[in-house]
Amino acid sequence: MTPTPKEATGNQSSWDTLLPDLPKGPLCRYCRKASFNWKEMAVFLDGEDIIQLKDRIFSALESDPLFAHHPGEDLCREKYQELTFLRCKRFFEYDFLTLQEIRENPLKIFCLVSCIGMYDWSSSLQYFLHCGVFAGPILSASERFAEFVKQIYKMEVFGCFALTELSHGTNTKGIRTTATFDPSTQEFIIHTPDFEAAKFWVGNMGKHATHAVVYAQLYTPDGQCHGLHSFIVQIRDTKSLLPVPGVMVGDIGMKLGQNGLDNGFAMFHNVRIPKENILNMTGDITPEGKYSSSVKDVKERFSAALGSLSTGRIFITAISITNLKLALSIAIRFSAARRQFGPTDDEEIPVLEYQMQQWRLLPYLAAAYALDYFCKSLLENFVEFFAGLLTKQRSQRQVDLGREIHALCAASKPLASWTAQQAVQECREACGGHGYLANKAPFESPLGTINVLQDYHHILGWKFTANSVEDCMDSSVPLAAYKWLVCYLLQESDLKLRKEKQSGRSDFEAKNNCQVYYCRSLAIAFIEQTVLQRYHDYTHDPSIPSTLQPVLKKLSALYGLWSLSKHLAVLYQGGYASGEQAGKFIQDAILELCYRLKDDAVALVDVFAPPDFILNSPIGKANGELYKNLWAEILQGRKTLNRPSWWAELCINKPVIGRLRSRL
Amino acid sequence: MTPTPKEATGNQSSWDTLLPDLPKGPLCRYCRKASFNWKEMAVFLDGEDIIQLKDRIFSALESDPLFAHHPGEDLCREKYQELTFLRCKRFFEYDFLTLQEIRENPLKIFCLVSCIGMYDWSSSLQYFLHCGVFAGPILSASERFAEFVKQIYKMEVFGCFALTELSHGTNTKGIRTTATFDPSTQEFIIHTPDFEAAKFWVGNMGKHATHAVVYAQLYTPDGQCHGLHSFIVQIRDTKSLLPVPGVMVGDIGMKLGQNGLDNGFAMFHNVRIPKENILNMTGDITPEGKYSSSVKDVKERFSAALGSLSTGRIFITAISITNLKLALSIAIRFSAARRQFGPTDDEEIPVLEYQMQQWRLLPYLAAAYALDYFCKSLLENFVEFFAGLLTKQRSQRQVDLGREIHALCAASKPLASWTAQQAVQECREACGGHGYLANKAPFESPLGTINVLQDYHHILGWKFTANSVEDCMDSSVPLAAYKWLVCYLLQESDLKLRKEKQSGRSDFEAKNNCQVYYCRSLAIAFIEQTVLQRYHDYTHDPSIPSTLQPVLKKLSALYGLWSLSKHLAVLYQGGYASGEQAGKFIQDAILELCYRLKDDAVALVDVFAPPDFILNSPIGKANGELYKNLWAEILQGRKTLNRPSWWAELCINKPVIGRLRSRL
Repeated sequence: MTPTPKEATGNQSSWDTLLPDLPKGPLCRYCRKASFNWKEMAVFLDGEDIIQLKDRIFSALESDPLFAHHPGEDLCREKYQELTFLRCKRFFEYDFLTLQEIRENPLKIFCLVSCIGMYDWSSSLQYFLHCGVFAGPILSASERFAEFVKQIYKMEVFGCFALTELSHGTNTKGIRTTATFDPSTQEFIIHTPDFEAAKFWVGNMGKHATHAVVYAQLYTPDGQCHGLHSFIVQIRDTKSLLPVPGVMVGDIGMKLGQNGLDNGFAMFHNVRIPKENILNMTGDITPEGKYSSSVKDVKERFSAALGSLSTGRIFITAISITNLKLALSIAIRFSAARRQFGPTDDEEIPVLEYQMQQWRLLPYLAAAYALDYFCKSLLENFVEFFAGLLTKQRSQRQVDLGREIHALCAASKPLASWTAQQAVQECREACGGHGYLANKAPFESPLGTINVLQDYHHILGWKFTANSVEDCMDSSVPLAAYKWLVCYLLQESDLKLRKEKQSGRSDFEAKNNCQVYYCRSLAIAFIEQTVLQRYHDYTHDPSIPSTLQPVLKKLSALYGLWSLSKHLAVLYQGGYASGEQAGKFIQDAILELCYRLKDDAVALVDVFAPPDFILNSPIGKANGELYKNLWAEILQGRKTLNRPSWWAELCINKPVIGRLRSRL
Repeated sequence: MTPTPKEATGNQSSWDTLLPDLPKGPLCRYCRKASFNWKEMAVFLDGEDIIQLKDRIFSALESDPLFAHHPGEDLCREKYQELTFLRCKRFFEYDFLTLQEIRENPLKIFCLVSCIGMYDWSSSLQYFLHCGVFAGPILSASERFAEFVKQIYKMEVFGCFALTELSHGTNTKGIRTTATFDPSTQEFIIHTPDFEAAKFWVGNMGKHATHAVVYAQLYTPDGQCHGLHSFIVQIRDTKSLLPVPGVMVGDIGMKLGQNGLDNGFAMFHNVRIPKENILNMTGDITPEGKYSSSVKDVKERFSAALGSLSTGRIFITAISITNLKLALSIAIRFSAARRQFGPTDDEEIPVLEYQMQQWRLLPYLAAAYALDYFCKSLLENFVEFFAGLLTKQRSQRQVDLGREIHALCAASKPLASWTAQQAVQECREACGGHGYLANKAPFESPLGTINVLQDYHHILGWKFTANSVEDCMDSSVPLAAYKWLVCYLLQESDLKLRKEKQSGRSDFEAKNNCQVYYCRSLAIAFIEQTVLQRYHDYTHDPSIPSTLQPVLKKLSALYGLWSLSKHLAVLYQGGYASGEQAGKFIQDAILELCYRLKDDAVALVDVFAPPDFILNSPIGKANGELYKNLWAEILQGRKTLNRPSWWAELCINKPVIGRLRSRL
């Protein structure tokens, strides 16, 4: 046990009140070896307030029969959808966060979504899609929706956010749903030209939503298109839940995951909605049918409209990090408890003692800490931006901040989800979007993320100078390398683009041909550098308690070196590194850091792992009794030992071998 | 259309009889641009015989209501298990392959398992676990099981293969189930000492198996242990399907996939089986209880016992490749049909035209072709080895062949499954085995896979010498680099091992510390080099029809360069490559090959894609009408448009906001 510091994190007895001890078991072996007190770390990272909120949420779920686990139970999709909805409804009754609490600390929303999500993402997302994604754009539009907002939070209506269409996901400019203003009735006519323009994949739309925020191309009576705008459209009757006339709406069916959530589709056949239902953040229409916008530039209007999508990206980042933490909680506890092979035939050692296992898991543990910090800091930036949006800030800083956050969110979303998944089958991913079409316009960097480029020419002359493995053990080493890497890739991308253009290719083709190995690598290196810079600064801050700083610095160094090691070829190719030693130093430093962190790994996981009830993994329970827990869980299953109802098909009705061969 | 050659692959009209035309649609655009005839390629790669077998299987499934698709249907696990069993039983009635056919061409078994598996892996594996994995070791034991084998193929018994235990997977030496011989009754007593030694994860055991091949430590009456042997143990009554006395057997519950298959567990409480039930391949026992073995060395006996596991590894390789093909069929057809963005706002282009999409998908297409060839050639090696096993070959060549195949299977299994998945979440994987504990004993290489090492010192002096991108466009370039890489990593691994030992570490520790960056990289580079060598030789063979050779050579080059590019840092680090150009040549050659293969991609997929009915993907259908097909599939769902049964929970029974807050 580390000595108790007298610092901001309070003291031993206050941590013990906040955080109960973990159950004793095989994992104690590692807990005793940890270099720090996991409770001190948890209180330092989260703060008392968040820890209490987590505890409130987790305890409520564990005490509520609606959230009971039923081992071995296999819900059909319909029952799972029903249960998801009932749970979502229950969250309104718990009302875990009042508006007041949210205003004081908007980060609590993420805490709420993640905590519920750790138990079940479907009900968490259903709740958040309604209260956040659907309500958000309505909140940030004009005052005239105040009454409707009240209805939302009383669940008198139930909502969804309908942007993507069957044939258009990423290319939101290609959205083809139309909203044509009819001055004679003061209505908009929402219309889907054909099934390829059906709204598609929309969460909550499949079975439940009564209303949708629908994105459509706004047409004035003169036939002019004013681009993408959003509208509140009722899709189901609030009393009967049957579709309203003109709307065909349904569920898109089984997905690979989150089948409790009802993703849906909708087609609109000249559905009329009141003029007031336009979400007039950037543009509105006069009773005569004249378009007016506070944002003059079409592109800027488009950017503002997309601004609200940043929330979604940050959420996906946060969700990915939460999933990363859950996976690590299970994998590291499992590795600390599971014994396999050993120096002699009789003695087996925990697999966490193997270098290979450390190298596979501990860099991800470092990544979980670094990305978690990054996500929180990005959220703080976003809160500033969103406050500006609500108060109609029109400063240049507000515009630049929006762009910088947009870029950071767009890049951190794939980084976090790739890191967390590493990766869904390449093919499946490849069917998705093209997240890396780079945003080339030079702009100011209120958050300082592109300051590195001011020293561009100077940095390109840097070299890898570490003289030993020990020299590499601080994140300043990978950080310097990243700065060089970003400048180098920027230079190379630029050269490549010019070459492509000189050889007569169109702008579109030229950009396309610079993606792989250039802009893609640049985008990845840039966001990794940004995450590392923020985490390096954080972990090296003198205000960090001395009891926690050593392990945090190790995590920072490991995350930096491990991320960097994937770019080693470019470091050599571009001349930053040369000779055998550079690569070996980096590799050896990674392995050494893994080794030095191995005894802290279980405690580092205890810091963020949810209670056993929420984690719901027999092999990931805090006591580490993995076989006992697994065995118990299986025997608790209702149908584990019973004879199948179709037993006679095996025992009595034997197949006539080859009976159907004549049909072949 | 390419001109019709007069070669082994027959002619246009014979291909057309064998393979029907694909439906017309948006994909025709690419089919017309292909440099070769996909039917000629299919006939060349598979041969008429296999194509006819495939067609027999696919047609039978499509015409049989038991295999009908029910869009939007959501089977609960129990129903899915029942359906899986009924389908498995139906395969006995089709009897797709007679013993005679299998004897003539054992590769047809793989074709059968893959073809059924493309439709549904659960029923395919259930069938194969019984007919192959369970029956296999019984077939290769003595003649006395002839009658039992007949029962197996009549489905009078139903079997499973029970090796792994709850706390021991990879480390098979640690298996703790015992089989103690009792001379007074001429029986073995099968016993599970505690639940951690329960047989676990065993396919077919959960609900169906009446018999199991059980691996246990054989004890003679004198208390001596003779190591792992296998025994036929009845676990359920064949008439009632209830467990026999002394056996506790059940289903392990929901898994991440293949939930139709009943993976199970079993504990044996002093279960007595006749002496004759030992599978006496390597060892047997006299009536007095004396142990005798034809294989004297314990280690060798262990190797022989594990030899039969190679089948499993080859199957996993084949299954991975099949899944890779399915994923590519869908992703490439989707990419050729899906349009998104474009040079102008009005014109959108298929996403396959994007360099990024090509780079993401086409190397995997090349890998599918190269790995498929490798798997087939490995199977041929294995058939030779297995024939030797059945005829009790005791030659040194037989032993060496067994070891070389074991090494190739152990390395190609992760290569194929990583390539196919790229990858299941690192954490999940990390909970699995340690497939890379290297086998260091020097041995002969009947298949020539380690011949490269004879030139060891010479090869270490090689350098990357290509002078242009065009120079790199043949697989001889990556092949040479791989030879250097394997030698270099071998040297480095050896140096590292010596250093670890010199610094006083035990053998076990020293080996452990050489895994990451050394032995692991070596194992990966070695198997990639082997796959590439075989595919290079194959694609450069003068007997390949001239109409097909160009595209096959491009696939070989792309696979080689792309795999190699992941080792680029080591090529620089070890001095094989230097300067900016080397890396750029390789990268540019990859992109250029992707570009040159893009118009062939759809045809290359048509070669291996199963019929639409089997592929069962609305976005992967051969006609490329992705939106129409997707839309149709969704509307065909039975519950797509209906109101949920719990609608009143949303519309009428509103939550009282915050009602439960006081409980928090």
